[in-house]
Amino acid sequence: MHFFVLKENINKALLIVSRSISTRPQIPILSNALFKAENGQLKIATTNLELGTLFVVPAKIEKEGETTIPGKLISEFISSLQAEKIEFLLEKNNMIVKTGRTKASFSTIPSSDFPPFDYTVKTRLKFSFKDIKDAVLRTTFAASIDEGRPILTGVKTTIKDGKLVFTATDGYRLSREQVEIEDKKSEWQVIIPAKALSEVVRIAQELKAEEIDVSILEGKNQVVFSVGSVLIFTRLIDGEFPNVEKIIPENFKTKVIIDKELFIQSVKTTSLFARGAANIIKIKVEKDGLRLKAVTPQVGEDEDFIEAEKEGEELETAFNFRFLLDMLANIPEEKIIFETSGPLNPGVFRMFSSSSTFLHIIMPVRIQE
Amino acid sequence: MHFFVLKENINKALLIVSRSISTRPQIPILSNALFKAENGQLKIATTNLELGTLFVVPAKIEKEGETTIPGKLISEFISSLQAEKIEFLLEKNNMIVKTGRTKASFSTIPSSDFPPFDYTVKTRLKFSFKDIKDAVLRTTFAASIDEGRPILTGVKTTIKDGKLVFTATDGYRLSREQVEIEDKKSEWQVIIPAKALSEVVRIAQELKAEEIDVSILEGKNQVVFSVGSVLIFTRLIDGEFPNVEKIIPENFKTKVIIDKELFIQSVKTTSLFARGAANIIKIKVEKDGLRLKAVTPQVGEDEDFIEAEKEGEELETAFNFRFLLDMLANIPEEKIIFETSGPLNPGVFRMFSSSSTFLHIIMPVRIQE
Repeated sequence: MHFFVLKENINKALLIVSRSISTRPQIPILSNALFKAENGQLKIATTNLELGTLFVVPAKIEKEGETTIPGKLISEFISSLQAEKIEFLLEKNNMIVKTGRTKASFSTIPSSDFPPFDYTVKTRLKFSFKDIKDAVLRTTFAASIDEGRPILTGVKTTIKDGKLVFTATDGYRLSREQVEIEDKKSEWQVIIPAKALSEVVRIAQELKAEEIDVSILEGKNQVVFSVGSVLIFTRLIDGEFPNVEKIIPENFKTKVIIDKELFIQSVKTTSLFARGAANIIKIKVEKDGLRLKAVTPQVGEDEDFIEAEKEGEELETAFNFRFLLDMLANIPEEKIIFETSGPLNPGVFRMFSSSSTFLHIIMPVRIQE
Repeated sequence: MHFFVLKENINKALLIVSRSISTRPQIPILSNALFKAENGQLKIATTNLELGTLFVVPAKIEKEGETTIPGKLISEFISSLQAEKIEFLLEKNNMIVKTGRTKASFSTIPSSDFPPFDYTVKTRLKFSFKDIKDAVLRTTFAASIDEGRPILTGVKTTIKDGKLVFTATDGYRLSREQVEIEDKKSEWQVIIPAKALSEVVRIAQELKAEEIDVSILEGKNQVVFSVGSVLIFTRLIDGEFPNVEKIIPENFKTKVIIDKELFIQSVKTTSLFARGAANIIKIKVEKDGLRLKAVTPQVGEDEDFIEAEKEGEELETAFNFRFLLDMLANIPEEKIIFETSGPLNPGVFRMFSSSSTFLHIIMPVRIQE
């Protein structure tokens, strides 16, 4: 194995693939990156078994071959070099990496131990990145990060009648967004790890990609995203996703139209007094607006009033302020609608504009007076 | 106690004083900030017993008084407000803080429990900030952060014959810088905590101060820096500072003139292979330059050559790369001189320009071949 690459090219590839190396790999080879030189191309791949990334790098191949070398180390090493052109040469069990004044040697592990990356496509869809980017960002944050219930770490992804719908919930809140897609015929329903979806968006942004190609791998319960010269592999999550339609209330006793910036600022100020009290903020819907209140015994309390347009009954409910801030950070519009039917009923947040399909639900906290 | 302040003014003060609150205070009142309204001024003070800060804020005082309230909380609270003008009112044991739409209440602890801040000056000196800033930055980083030997957490500060000299050492390296000052008569020798000196420089930068007034407090073993409207108090460190003159070698067998940028980059690249090997980088002085080398068994190794001008004998020594990078990050000039007398003798680094007085010493690491 012997090849030359430009620093710029391999550096970009390594920065991206090194993110799918776990910091504590289950087996040693998972901390390595696969280097495969064939057909005039260098392929670099990494995987943490949940997420895999394969980057194709232009290279001048002198001799084909493949091996694996420590992934984070080679990435940092290449980053630190000033050279334009870098030579790689496999000598027995060591990969020699040379520039004008530097000569490094990396221990290798044979590529035969590396999880295979070959695949046969079952179904394939193309999306415009612009279409799906916001929908991914507005839903993934609501997925669970607790591996205790794996199904909730995924985003339910449904395609039907020309609509792509993402739904994520961690059991305390739910986020749903929908986009129109060109393909009016396909029907899909899969649960994709939220982390993988976020990584796909991040890579597409870095590579300024306009299109994302998504394939399901036959018999493997895997999905692969193709973004420019990168393939991102991830397993699909098996299991029964919560029946979210049942959770979404249809009727409300109270509806409030709120200015987003005012609300963010008010939640932030009040939250300072909620950190010592299980993060709970009380929200009282009054005649002319919302009164936010938080108390940390022995420290102090805060009460904040913002004007808002109310329809229906006055009432008081309470939320974990972190969920409010997460939601508010991901809201596209300046005005939001908050609807509820009582202190212990879910709070439903929608956009004021009728064209928006974003929906967010936060479960209230029971408060003792 | 009742007063009004502009958000801008009190916010700036709180951001600065809240840094001298320790995150785990020894006694509860130390997490509070002292608020003292008198003579048409608001004074806000905090202390972690090692470092104290007192900020004078313009305010409209309706009623004089003093109390203490949670320091980090009031700082974050004021930061989060949009209001221009803020009202403070002490009602029984609570400080009420009001703006147009917000009303908060903070628990207080009586100010009588707060460590006193009064002082009587013994000696006083004025410095131009420009003069001492770089000297502080170039020495404090070499002080110890280990409280095991308190004397090494300080910077020895000597004034004599119109020269101010800062010296810091953690036992493995030493940094010394000297500046000419206007005052040709004073004589001083004190050991000031490195953290306090760094904080003084940071505050002077934030306040764009041009002058720093330094006083020693009579009978208290304390020093106070006056920067704009802030006073920074710190205790002096008692004890015998290492006799550094004895450590600084006078004769060398080898002298090398090195380009700083080349050296930084080379140390960084090589260091990637030193992290698994006690951070040790070997440096071989050869005929035409330096050869840097690091080996992490089972992972790999790197060898990097940079051209440099050598006088004297060829030899090989070894350093902890973190000390090299710390030193290189604080070097003002593009060319440095490295001098040594052998593998186990101290490495001495000076600036190439004869006008520079910066000196840095790093103790080598014994290597087994």
